[in-house]
Amino acid sequence: MNKAELLARVNRGPLTESVHTGHIAVVDGSGTLLAGVGDPEALIFARSAAKPLQAVPVVASGAADKFGFSGEQIALMCASHNGEPEHVEAAADMLRKLGLSGEALLCGPHYPYHEPTADRMKRQGIEPSRLHNNCSGKHAGMLALARMTGATAEDYDSPDHPVQQTMLRAVAGLAGMPHDRIALGIDGCGVPVFGLPLGQLARAFAALGTPDRLDERQANACRSIVKAIRSYPKYIAGDDRFDTHLIRATGGRIVGKMGAEGVFAATVPGQNAALAVKIADGSARALYAVVVEALFQLQWLEPDELAVLEPFHQPPIRNWSGRQVGSIATDFRLV
Amino acid sequence: MNKAELLARVNRGPLTESVHTGHIAVVDGSGTLLAGVGDPEALIFARSAAKPLQAVPVVASGAADKFGFSGEQIALMCASHNGEPEHVEAAADMLRKLGLSGEALLCGPHYPYHEPTADRMKRQGIEPSRLHNNCSGKHAGMLALARMTGATAEDYDSPDHPVQQTMLRAVAGLAGMPHDRIALGIDGCGVPVFGLPLGQLARAFAALGTPDRLDERQANACRSIVKAIRSYPKYIAGDDRFDTHLIRATGGRIVGKMGAEGVFAATVPGQNAALAVKIADGSARALYAVVVEALFQLQWLEPDELAVLEPFHQPPIRNWSGRQVGSIATDFRLV
Repeated sequence: MNKAELLARVNRGPLTESVHTGHIAVVDGSGTLLAGVGDPEALIFARSAAKPLQAVPVVASGAADKFGFSGEQIALMCASHNGEPEHVEAAADMLRKLGLSGEALLCGPHYPYHEPTADRMKRQGIEPSRLHNNCSGKHAGMLALARMTGATAEDYDSPDHPVQQTMLRAVAGLAGMPHDRIALGIDGCGVPVFGLPLGQLARAFAALGTPDRLDERQANACRSIVKAIRSYPKYIAGDDRFDTHLIRATGGRIVGKMGAEGVFAATVPGQNAALAVKIADGSARALYAVVVEALFQLQWLEPDELAVLEPFHQPPIRNWSGRQVGSIATDFRLV
Repeated sequence: MNKAELLARVNRGPLTESVHTGHIAVVDGSGTLLAGVGDPEALIFARSAAKPLQAVPVVASGAADKFGFSGEQIALMCASHNGEPEHVEAAADMLRKLGLSGEALLCGPHYPYHEPTADRMKRQGIEPSRLHNNCSGKHAGMLALARMTGATAEDYDSPDHPVQQTMLRAVAGLAGMPHDRIALGIDGCGVPVFGLPLGQLARAFAALGTPDRLDERQANACRSIVKAIRSYPKYIAGDDRFDTHLIRATGGRIVGKMGAEGVFAATVPGQNAALAVKIADGSARALYAVVVEALFQLQWLEPDELAVLEPFHQPPIRNWSGRQVGSIATDFRLV
């Protein structure tokens, strides 16, 4: 992390009050570095940015077809969703299709990311369930893969479980690296997370968006997943969330996914290129500004799309009375 | 901010997932640098770490005596409080003593920092008032100073208002610098915040704790404020908060105050020394770990006090199920 470079300033009045440093990698499908900031090969955990990659072996196994998952539900497998009612209902329906209940999910419960929904639940005295966990779609996909392959459903969160081993190998394959070179940690939702160089995460997204080099089953799975995310962007995040707005603003020309601790990966499907960002301190507040600025510098975003995404590009800092007292401004050049 | 150095690592499984860099300054009352990390003279906003300094002109004016503020209420003037019932009641009582209502406060409302209290309010459908704002004690002190000096009470948040001008000069005097060299921004609660070198913030805390060089009115005000904070540590923050625990763990031998955007200042009253910390990215999660480690390296904290503060010193990272999946570990040496 030592080579992290300045990405954004948090300005208040006449001073830069805080700064966010980090790394950016832009690659093509062969892994060739097209542009970068900081250390494009910094070792990071992909966190939830890996979810669209983890959905590939689920769809490639035939599980989505067999259990009749809808496009919304395939998108939800890739989601860090908001826990809005349609997300929770879609996850519950996936479990019904598997003949399971929400209790089969091994992710812990948490209140929805979507604050109005969380506040409403608190007012009504409703405790969150595992279905509200932002990862419930991913976990439902893991259960589907377990069912499809005859693996046990009780311990699918273990790193040694066939489902996790299959996902590890699928992510490694998309990233173009040996699976035993991926470092494993445990995510907020209890399952393994993948530690790999930032550039390899970008490469995996390039493969997801332009899967021409993959075998046909995998390539078709990638196409189904990208199509589902493009068609149902609300299901990958939610109403107030950047991932959803990025996909909407570009009419699906760009597909991206955030991960905890300041991670984002995005691809332009069909263009054999992708970008990955890591904010070194792990915070989210400058992440989307940096992603938008990087996409614009790469000319992957059009000026009118940039205008639509302006609230994410230059987020204001407001005080408790709503008055703007500062702003976040990116400060880097992709080279 | 360019000279920020590594202060803490956020570890997950086999990897350092994120890092926090920043600055530390340790000074004596004359401003001599005793130890540092990064750039001890980095320009920072003191944010709420200035509150105990801002209380000095209020107490020195005689307002706390005239209006009969209790020790708890003097501590509350220095607080970023939790919005627990006793905090809100103490603030409301200060306003009653001034012949004013909560509406006289110009800080915006927000739900209490104390989550159980905030959740209870949401369940009961109670909206937060300005009294719940973590700065309501500071604002009540500003109103007391306005009343005491015959200034208007309606616009006390303006940088040109006599109350703010008095506070600016008091903070500058304690920091040992000309008031026109302090940069002004606007805080979350609407009033001016003070931009100054980190080492000058530390120097001001040294003066607060060991006010021998100040004139007698100011020195007595400093002593009253330190006594109030030591006697009523709950009123400077709250039950689950580091500031309160630090003061309790040391029996009041160390007095410290956090500020937004990763700021902390602490002094050992009577020892003519103080420390100030800035986390460059502005986040709070590593701040208290860094402060505890720095205090221990300085031998200002005893081993048994370190043990009591261990939950703040090495905070675990847990997933939604409560399982520990990582931890925050400091990584610096004060030189």
